[in-house]
Amino acid sequence: MSQFDADFELAAGNGLMDRRFFFRAGAAASTLLMAASAGGEDRPPWTRVPGAAMSEKGDPSPFEGHVKRINVSSRPGTTGSGSSRSPLEHLDGVITPSRLHFERHHSGIPDIDPDQHRLAIHGLVERPLAFDLDTLARYPTVSRIQFLECSGNSGGLIAPNPMQATASQIHGLVSASEWGGVPLKLLLDEAGIKPGAKWIVADGADAAMMSRSVPLDKILDDAIVALYQNGERLRPSNGYPMRLFLPGWEGNMSVKWLRSIKVTATPSMTKDETSKYSDLGDDGIATLFSFPMGVKSLITSPSPGLALGAAGIYQISGIAWSGSGRIRRVEISADGGKSWADAALDEHVLPKCLTRFRSAWHWDGGPAVLMSRAIDEAGNVQPTRDEVLANRASNTFYHYNAIQAWAVDKDGESRNVYA
Amino acid sequence: MSQFDADFELAAGNGLMDRRFFFRAGAAASTLLMAASAGGEDRPPWTRVPGAAMSEKGDPSPFEGHVKRINVSSRPGTTGSGSSRSPLEHLDGVITPSRLHFERHHSGIPDIDPDQHRLAIHGLVERPLAFDLDTLARYPTVSRIQFLECSGNSGGLIAPNPMQATASQIHGLVSASEWGGVPLKLLLDEAGIKPGAKWIVADGADAAMMSRSVPLDKILDDAIVALYQNGERLRPSNGYPMRLFLPGWEGNMSVKWLRSIKVTATPSMTKDETSKYSDLGDDGIATLFSFPMGVKSLITSPSPGLALGAAGIYQISGIAWSGSGRIRRVEISADGGKSWADAALDEHVLPKCLTRFRSAWHWDGGPAVLMSRAIDEAGNVQPTRDEVLANRASNTFYHYNAIQAWAVDKDGESRNVYA
Repeated sequence: MSQFDADFELAAGNGLMDRRFFFRAGAAASTLLMAASAGGEDRPPWTRVPGAAMSEKGDPSPFEGHVKRINVSSRPGTTGSGSSRSPLEHLDGVITPSRLHFERHHSGIPDIDPDQHRLAIHGLVERPLAFDLDTLARYPTVSRIQFLECSGNSGGLIAPNPMQATASQIHGLVSASEWGGVPLKLLLDEAGIKPGAKWIVADGADAAMMSRSVPLDKILDDAIVALYQNGERLRPSNGYPMRLFLPGWEGNMSVKWLRSIKVTATPSMTKDETSKYSDLGDDGIATLFSFPMGVKSLITSPSPGLALGAAGIYQISGIAWSGSGRIRRVEISADGGKSWADAALDEHVLPKCLTRFRSAWHWDGGPAVLMSRAIDEAGNVQPTRDEVLANRASNTFYHYNAIQAWAVDKDGESRNVYA
Repeated sequence: MSQFDADFELAAGNGLMDRRFFFRAGAAASTLLMAASAGGEDRPPWTRVPGAAMSEKGDPSPFEGHVKRINVSSRPGTTGSGSSRSPLEHLDGVITPSRLHFERHHSGIPDIDPDQHRLAIHGLVERPLAFDLDTLARYPTVSRIQFLECSGNSGGLIAPNPMQATASQIHGLVSASEWGGVPLKLLLDEAGIKPGAKWIVADGADAAMMSRSVPLDKILDDAIVALYQNGERLRPSNGYPMRLFLPGWEGNMSVKWLRSIKVTATPSMTKDETSKYSDLGDDGIATLFSFPMGVKSLITSPSPGLALGAAGIYQISGIAWSGSGRIRRVEISADGGKSWADAALDEHVLPKCLTRFRSAWHWDGGPAVLMSRAIDEAGNVQPTRDEVLANRASNTFYHYNAIQAWAVDKDGESRNVYA
């Protein structure tokens, strides 16, 4: 054991440091300051000229141009059936800037005039009602910071060999925002739900008329007609001027450009919930409705493309989330799952939200396999890949939430491995 | 009392409804749906053509072009000594989108190459140290959602006659973001604080070399070197690549483009804390250091420029904040302060953060004076204008946190009044 190791209490194998240490002391990564630097003789050039003026909007620095949505792709022959992904390994905290929130569209982004847009509530109701933005503005609003994840996220990991790709390329169909809007329960109460109502079907105003069935219990619990994202109106690629938002449930159900809520006795078996977003078992039987997203986590730093420098202390950082509530604990391993240590969580852990976790790690310069494992307040433990794939038919890729392993090599590069 | 009033329990005068009601029932503002509308015969045009493709970044809708930073202004003869304001009455929730975060610069926005930028820690320390972005990335990071307010915010309200302006024009120098960065305590611990140290002075890398003194206790408590705002790197107009962030304290002290932290025995009496940001009493004696921002609130809707339509039920919505911790309660009056009712607060109230409050109000179509009054967890109560102005020298405008009143006239227009 080196002098260095002796100074720090280790919490698990291969250099994972105790989380109490993590907040006690620094990483000793600084450099000694030359005496002249503090004085001002070496003032950088930008202190010697007046800066740019104030403006109506603040853009990111040109030096951050690489931070953008990635894997922007449509199916051949379409302009708008596809997705783009959030650049997870370049983000920190839990909020995803709205411009970087992932997209998954079925026939592109409609160009909606908000003054012409209406939400219809009909079906098994006493009084069919129509709402425009002005009328919705008079109803009580709630706002909450919550995640949204496409149920196809991470699905590439069903492949027999681990794809060599970045954290974003593999897992970038998850984001978190402050979502603000009107509880759908209030609108349904006003319409008057008829006896026998058990489901709704929600339609979007896109050319695909994307539609999903949702159990009425969920609608009455915490569904909102979202009007605001991160303080401002939704952006068109996230459903402007209004979308359904179902906290914790698979993203596709949070129907964008929401146009119609029809109250029904049964699920409507739309194309978007039968041909897609269903889970085929190896017995040939498909599970149609897998709504809450499973407990999941992911180390975003280090990760492929973010190489470590010299051996020494590093912060391991990542995100964890669960459709069942708050994250209770995240465990980290640096030795491929042989030993685990608790990560530190950010101070305010919110339900059905991304939770940032962090650990201190003394990388000795040798190979390591980093993993994270999340546990939610309902006691759900993030499964292994073998557990996720058990009893699945081949090519069935939705709802993949297995533990992710990154292998760090002696050059400090990370790659995706099945461990 | 009309039938309408009889149906709803009133919580205070002039139509303020009980907050329990607010979450029980809707505003009855919808319109009956024509039978044909629900079917699809009147599908809007944007459902009949494929939409736009996915993209690297999602911009706001062109219909939201009016939502931008306002009052973008510099002092005559300068390009960058001035401010711009967040469009508060067009926002909801608590997060301010980074592009809309207010600005206050003293010599514009420097164009900083992040690879060339260094933070020096020196003065009364054992080992002067320099940090670049790569070394800071190895230290533990924290992220928290917190407000930032310029201490000159709302200062126009010292004028003897109430200025006729919007909520943003009067109060738009406050915003909230998720701020992520390295606790400054960790960096100072590594440098080794020498005996006798009681203060630091922080310098920015702008042409003004904006600098402020900060008591060491605050630095060791919760100050961070912020690197991230709302999940992404700081934007240049908010300090890229790094700024000091002092939760709850006057915004000017959260020095942008942070370049130097010098540990000192006494405050440094810089130009930016003596010629400005001080409070002159009517005895001719100036109070130099008023650091935590006072408890404050503001109704953003309705407010000047957002006219009400027909008489009926409306949501009153606004923001409250305190530099001393969490908001505990917000009270609303619709009769100019004669009677008050509790507003509903969003579910997760965070310390030193904007808190969104909401009330239901039955506007009878007559004149009304709307006010909000915030109380924080330390028991501080938002003061009246008279209380704020007591013992102040004239033209002394910093740290103004009085109760704001909006007078609603019979046309539904609001205007700023002293009430």
